[in-house]
Amino acid sequence: MPFRAPVEEYRFLLEHVVDFARVAATERFAEATPDLVEAILSELAKLADEVWAPLQRAGDTDPARLENGVVVTSKGYAGAYRALAEGGWIGMAAPVEHGGMGLPLTLATVMNDMLSGACLALELNPLMSQGQIEALEHHADDALKALYLPRLISGEWTGTMNLTEPQAGSDVGALRTKAVPQEDGTYAISGQKIFISWGDHDFGGNVCHLVLARLPGAAEGTRGISLFLVPKILPDGTANALRVVSLEHKMGLHGSPTAVMAYEGARGWLVGGEHRGMAAMFTMMNNARLGVGVQGIGVAEGAYQKALSYAAERVQGRSPVAGGTGTILDHADVRRMLAQMKADLFAARAIGFSCAVALDLAQAGEDGAFWAARAALLTPIAKAFGTATGMRVAEQGMQVHGGMGFIEETGAAQFYRDVRVTAIYEGTNGIQAMDLVGRKLADGGEAALALIEEMQEAAEAARATRPDLAEPVWQAVETLREATEWMLAQGDMQARFAGAVPYLEGFARVLGAHLHLKAAGSEAAPGPRTALARIYIARLLPEHAGHLAAAMAGAQDLYALGPEALLP
Amino acid sequence: MPFRAPVEEYRFLLEHVVDFARVAATERFAEATPDLVEAILSELAKLADEVWAPLQRAGDTDPARLENGVVVTSKGYAGAYRALAEGGWIGMAAPVEHGGMGLPLTLATVMNDMLSGACLALELNPLMSQGQIEALEHHADDALKALYLPRLISGEWTGTMNLTEPQAGSDVGALRTKAVPQEDGTYAISGQKIFISWGDHDFGGNVCHLVLARLPGAAEGTRGISLFLVPKILPDGTANALRVVSLEHKMGLHGSPTAVMAYEGARGWLVGGEHRGMAAMFTMMNNARLGVGVQGIGVAEGAYQKALSYAAERVQGRSPVAGGTGTILDHADVRRMLAQMKADLFAARAIGFSCAVALDLAQAGEDGAFWAARAALLTPIAKAFGTATGMRVAEQGMQVHGGMGFIEETGAAQFYRDVRVTAIYEGTNGIQAMDLVGRKLADGGEAALALIEEMQEAAEAARATRPDLAEPVWQAVETLREATEWMLAQGDMQARFAGAVPYLEGFARVLGAHLHLKAAGSEAAPGPRTALARIYIARLLPEHAGHLAAAMAGAQDLYALGPEALLP
Repeated sequence: MPFRAPVEEYRFLLEHVVDFARVAATERFAEATPDLVEAILSELAKLADEVWAPLQRAGDTDPARLENGVVVTSKGYAGAYRALAEGGWIGMAAPVEHGGMGLPLTLATVMNDMLSGACLALELNPLMSQGQIEALEHHADDALKALYLPRLISGEWTGTMNLTEPQAGSDVGALRTKAVPQEDGTYAISGQKIFISWGDHDFGGNVCHLVLARLPGAAEGTRGISLFLVPKILPDGTANALRVVSLEHKMGLHGSPTAVMAYEGARGWLVGGEHRGMAAMFTMMNNARLGVGVQGIGVAEGAYQKALSYAAERVQGRSPVAGGTGTILDHADVRRMLAQMKADLFAARAIGFSCAVALDLAQAGEDGAFWAARAALLTPIAKAFGTATGMRVAEQGMQVHGGMGFIEETGAAQFYRDVRVTAIYEGTNGIQAMDLVGRKLADGGEAALALIEEMQEAAEAARATRPDLAEPVWQAVETLREATEWMLAQGDMQARFAGAVPYLEGFARVLGAHLHLKAAGSEAAPGPRTALARIYIARLLPEHAGHLAAAMAGAQDLYALGPEALLP
Repeated sequence: MPFRAPVEEYRFLLEHVVDFARVAATERFAEATPDLVEAILSELAKLADEVWAPLQRAGDTDPARLENGVVVTSKGYAGAYRALAEGGWIGMAAPVEHGGMGLPLTLATVMNDMLSGACLALELNPLMSQGQIEALEHHADDALKALYLPRLISGEWTGTMNLTEPQAGSDVGALRTKAVPQEDGTYAISGQKIFISWGDHDFGGNVCHLVLARLPGAAEGTRGISLFLVPKILPDGTANALRVVSLEHKMGLHGSPTAVMAYEGARGWLVGGEHRGMAAMFTMMNNARLGVGVQGIGVAEGAYQKALSYAAERVQGRSPVAGGTGTILDHADVRRMLAQMKADLFAARAIGFSCAVALDLAQAGEDGAFWAARAALLTPIAKAFGTATGMRVAEQGMQVHGGMGFIEETGAAQFYRDVRVTAIYEGTNGIQAMDLVGRKLADGGEAALALIEEMQEAAEAARATRPDLAEPVWQAVETLREATEWMLAQGDMQARFAGAVPYLEGFARVLGAHLHLKAAGSEAAPGPRTALARIYIARLLPEHAGHLAAAMAGAQDLYALGPEALLP
């Protein structure tokens, strides 16, 4: 069975779980009527299923390569990219004044989910452009906007992010790339950048690099960083002084060329003020973080569909149940794996879409500040939990395949290899968790506790109709409240950081249960949504206790175990 | 920093955690004095560190390949294999009468751990031979023993296991390979086998295949299966009618050639009685299951050491703690990852070695039946938890590396890819869990409850010296008891199977805590072992609650969610 974009699932989530109607009810997004949403879903699903999904394996079997300094991409990628661009989809959430559709980010998020499931390596390309569009929109001057935005939005040109250098990874402030002001108002950019996704390609058009660099005399650390737009081709049509040095040999995502870039006095234009690069970069990163979380969700969908297809066709042994299908689907452990994969995926997707809705309401709604805080809170959770779910589901997908899962031709292994990087790039999942317990609780817990309150009220209300499901959710929310209060009480940030990852995992598990409960509540009588919620609440929600206990372990035991005790 | 076999850790475990002295105190293993153990550890460590570990990457960079029907192995592998064989190590636990050393399986298990950490793909070769030696020892007739055992034990020849066919994976009973009796008492074997690890190589000598096949008129299913020894080279020096059809293109473990084998009327000799093949195969599999669990542990060691080396050298950002190392080791989240990896690895290793000690005591001790039941109980736990720990630690190891972890040259990704198959082969981890809640609880829970009792008494006793650690362990054991009693109360095996995997995971988490507590108790005053136990008990043990809750979820919710509800 080939990949099918889960359109019915998107419909259900938008309508019954993440309240997309609230977005469509705003003046800003009044155009996003149910009819339009339906048209978008079906058009995009056609593109994902028929054009993109058949290219998924090509990234692996015919990976991007560097030939004489030029990147040659997997066969078929250029055409599939153009099909997306020609539909106007890259600029779906971009401003109308520059040629975008001006639609809600939520719909762009649905698109990213679909395309990631169909062909992750290629999807990373427009995801980078989307982030660049947003950064330029908020921080570039009018001349830059006029030149670049229409072409990025139309997909004629593509965008990249250049942060990392060999000595500067999570510690961006350690970067050394230099920007020297020129007499014509531009800057000469020199330095080496690594891990540049889609640093070059053969789709035609320009490649526009957003590069973090340091001006002469700039302060050390992140306060001395500025952002520059450095195009591969200069406005006069000549080549800029930059080149792809090499492509990385990665464990997966081979269809996405990951470049080492050299800037050798390349001409760049300042975006945002001098030394204001981090702020501009964060605009891009925040968008990209949700986008990466959704990549994990898309891969989970692809891996789930593949495993289900395999199980539904694999005949093995006598069926252990009366009236079974005769396939391994009848086996309790196989069914457990598939049911958990589906329930896990639902939770991650519902969280990701909730984050997108919050971003839209922050921009367009009446309680902008409230929704901005909600979106800020949900972004690291959506990123880390979405990608971790992608990893878990891809792992279980291989397991469902048994020995065949380890054979590359089956395709299950590719999901496992490809998705692994999503837990690392755009800020590792550890960095996301530190953001959650640091910056995102810096409001004294206002945003987190508001969500906790909302979840507890919903569980309280659900007691009337789904008491067996509502009670464990209520209890779990209570445990999350305790862990949150514990976090807030820690003055020493190391104590928070020592429990950051399990806190985020526990938070996500509880939030996922809340959203499952909401889905179950949408059924007048218990049906498949309630059955799936039951799977989640009985089998996955219980994990929260372990996570949240670990979250409150503090840092003392870690530092008590000195580096010498870590030696083998 | 290159790989170093963790000799100090082995010493500590043997002496203070798994009571190896009990094995050495038996008449059968009286030779295994502390001096001998010390000599073995240091000799093997030299071999692992200096000869095997430098070849770890070669499996990936120069994988095994099939050339004109002949397998060519990674450069250096043949020499490293010979070095192992020449030391007499392959027959370390094999009977003296056939040329083995007759030493405890526990020491062979330590060896397998070391060699798996040094070079997993190559280690799989002697592991297969060890299993074959044991199967022949127990089931072959004297003539076969006399011909094959000395040569397998010396390592001159190697062994393989041939179970799987395309339609017969976990469902071995579906196999179709035929064995037709010949007038000379041999059998003509015809059929195709897949997933044959080390099905051929260029180390010289013979390759001896143990092949499951069906005699004419044999019953359907597993009751109609017989086992045959089918050598590549016949005793008269001519080639047997078998060949390697192809090698699989796998996600990892590229140094280990995984063959599709064709038997075309090949001459074979019956091992064990007619239709008694499964019993003989299980002798081989049980040994191999512990061996595979230990592979996971070895890989965890390799991945841990690599991540620790990286972290200890990676300078990033200002140190968040006073008097720090200046590396990312100072960051609470990095230290958390490494500390958890180490604590997790300790638990898995202690469980694996406990299983080996039980196997030795079953063979040599006074309470043979008791230890046999203990070993039978621990085998699926050691296999599944050892390999799952390998996967977890390899995953965290990549995460510690950040973006570099996804780059193949770093080597962290290879651990992640290689170890993945250990959760699948020799019976998937799901099959292990079903074995645990099925066969291994079929004694009415006697063996499980005896271990639970032992753990609870130890926690009780530890309250005097380590109350803060003992209390959560005691409580966790109590939860495990409840889950075990729940399992025993289920007449419907599907209900048990639906919770089998989380039950096994919860059991292992609790057992790991018990063994950490024992390690802590070996210190007169709290030292590094107590600190590591604290990490485990605060951060990993809490997981047991979620696992054991899920273990008791029953099968109803899974079957309520019909196949149609599983559709995307």
